[in-house]
Amino acid sequence: MKEVVLGIDIGGTSSTLGLVDSLGNILVESNMPTPASASGMSASDFAELLYGKVFELQRQVSEACQLVGVGIGAPDAKFDSGTIEFACNLPWRHEVVPFVALMQRHFPDIPIRMTNDANAAAIGELVYGGARGMKHFVTITLGTGVGSGVVVNGQLVYGSDGFAGELGHLIMTPQGRRCGCGRRGCLETYVSASGLRQTAFEVMSRRYFSEKSLLKEISFSEMTSKNIAAAAQQGDSMAQEVFEETGKMLGLGLANIVTFSSPEAIFLYGGLVKAGDLLLAPTVKSMNENMMKTFCRRSAQGQIVQEANVRLLPSELNDSNGAVLGAAALIWSESK
Amino acid sequence: MKEVVLGIDIGGTSSTLGLVDSLGNILVESNMPTPASASGMSASDFAELLYGKVFELQRQVSEACQLVGVGIGAPDAKFDSGTIEFACNLPWRHEVVPFVALMQRHFPDIPIRMTNDANAAAIGELVYGGARGMKHFVTITLGTGVGSGVVVNGQLVYGSDGFAGELGHLIMTPQGRRCGCGRRGCLETYVSASGLRQTAFEVMSRRYFSEKSLLKEISFSEMTSKNIAAAAQQGDSMAQEVFEETGKMLGLGLANIVTFSSPEAIFLYGGLVKAGDLLLAPTVKSMNENMMKTFCRRSAQGQIVQEANVRLLPSELNDSNGAVLGAAALIWSESK
Repeated sequence: MKEVVLGIDIGGTSSTLGLVDSLGNILVESNMPTPASASGMSASDFAELLYGKVFELQRQVSEACQLVGVGIGAPDAKFDSGTIEFACNLPWRHEVVPFVALMQRHFPDIPIRMTNDANAAAIGELVYGGARGMKHFVTITLGTGVGSGVVVNGQLVYGSDGFAGELGHLIMTPQGRRCGCGRRGCLETYVSASGLRQTAFEVMSRRYFSEKSLLKEISFSEMTSKNIAAAAQQGDSMAQEVFEETGKMLGLGLANIVTFSSPEAIFLYGGLVKAGDLLLAPTVKSMNENMMKTFCRRSAQGQIVQEANVRLLPSELNDSNGAVLGAAALIWSESK
Repeated sequence: MKEVVLGIDIGGTSSTLGLVDSLGNILVESNMPTPASASGMSASDFAELLYGKVFELQRQVSEACQLVGVGIGAPDAKFDSGTIEFACNLPWRHEVVPFVALMQRHFPDIPIRMTNDANAAAIGELVYGGARGMKHFVTITLGTGVGSGVVVNGQLVYGSDGFAGELGHLIMTPQGRRCGCGRRGCLETYVSASGLRQTAFEVMSRRYFSEKSLLKEISFSEMTSKNIAAAAQQGDSMAQEVFEETGKMLGLGLANIVTFSSPEAIFLYGGLVKAGDLLLAPTVKSMNENMMKTFCRRSAQGQIVQEANVRLLPSELNDSNGAVLGAAALIWSESK
């Protein structure tokens, strides 16, 4: 009988479940809405809903399979305690939800592991993606916000409380933009999809009033990173400046990250990565310029070249199923 | 026969050697000048000099002892390769010196380990100091520069190249002070002894011309952190502001460090720590203010209190011999 792991990715609006074999094949996948805050649904009821879905999934798989574990990626999830704590994008924003224990009631005999979605992506990259065989790497998810996972000595860095690796909340400019975390100037406020949109308005606010730009026809609420990318690709100089500014800040952040853990590679993941060289080129430029010489490569003659040793790579996980793979990898990485 | 490790701390001006037993007792210690850049002494000759000193040390110990290893802390030393690379404070600033190999010639039968001085301090704290039993902690050395060691999951973070944990070179303000590393705005340029002196002149430059201060009688070259601390202790408001500014920046830096690895404790080590609450009080205040809520403590009612979970502690290693202890601990930590 084929052994499979149930991978669950709980997102702010929808949740995805999949049965994943040890090679990282998703045999079957299914989506369901995450309960909205207004629904008042209890975490216990949601766990039961998820449990119900598993039978549907198993019925869709042609061969007989045995469930050997459940891996869960969720916002504000804590690995050590198996809890989801004060998750502002879930209906239980004022609670510490013992989600692993709730799920364990339905699956009493198999291991259940949970971590936050960004850490799950890092584990997915380690087990099934481009980081296979690497001891030191970082994954950065550039989405609505910025998530991250840090691997040191082959292990995820959870820190003393299970919450380490919040690199989206490195303060870049103490008096900078207001962040949802309640502080100011976090990396996330500049290099997320939301930050990119804000930068569009910053650029418009400081350039000549009379300059033309496609961005000038779009309201704040309607501005998206797609709009901006499309304009930049058509040669719109303000839109291009938005990506340059974003890359500048991201490159500086990455240089600081290297100063900390000197990873072999940094993997970029998430929607913004689709902008390709529009974002990557200025990011690499800024990362190289801001890199401490200690972490720069040396020429054949032994001279320092102002160019980072670390490799900046796109994630090898597919955006659409990377989160489910990563969640499943929480279990598979333990059994290997 | 008592087993001892030779601990060697190579500093910019002088080097210290000591024989250390497994409990962290320094049985005997000796100093010698580190060769000056102008001396032109080869690393091989320096290794031979150090070797010669060992017999002197052994003769001074009353009981018979057996040397079971050599631990070395040196600037710009790389753990993996056993090399000292482009060390700007040593005579071999343009070289990659295979220092472990040079020492191994004299001690062919025992293990030799080398890391940079800041990492050695962290290992010393782990094996003999306040970090015993901790899995996640950081040490910050506030001296002429700023050194650091990061421990995650009980292991020092060396990263992919052996150079990780250069937290003194986190860029805090991209257009900030010029740093010896060739970049601008590094933490070290604000919170080292040198940074403190520079801040004294920044404070004098911006306050009322007519204000009186003890600092106004001291030239840049004669300004020391001791001068400034003495003035602050006498109630000099500019000198107090210097420490407040320094603590503000250090606290912000520490908050960013917690975002990365969420340590249980941060240990402060080095000369500046002697200023005590002058520096510590504003540092703790700023660290608390800048701490992401995720890493803040919760009240008994489960509410978040804007106060960091991480403990900020003075190192339990004595400044004068901590470096030798740390170097020796490189060996003792392996045999435990």
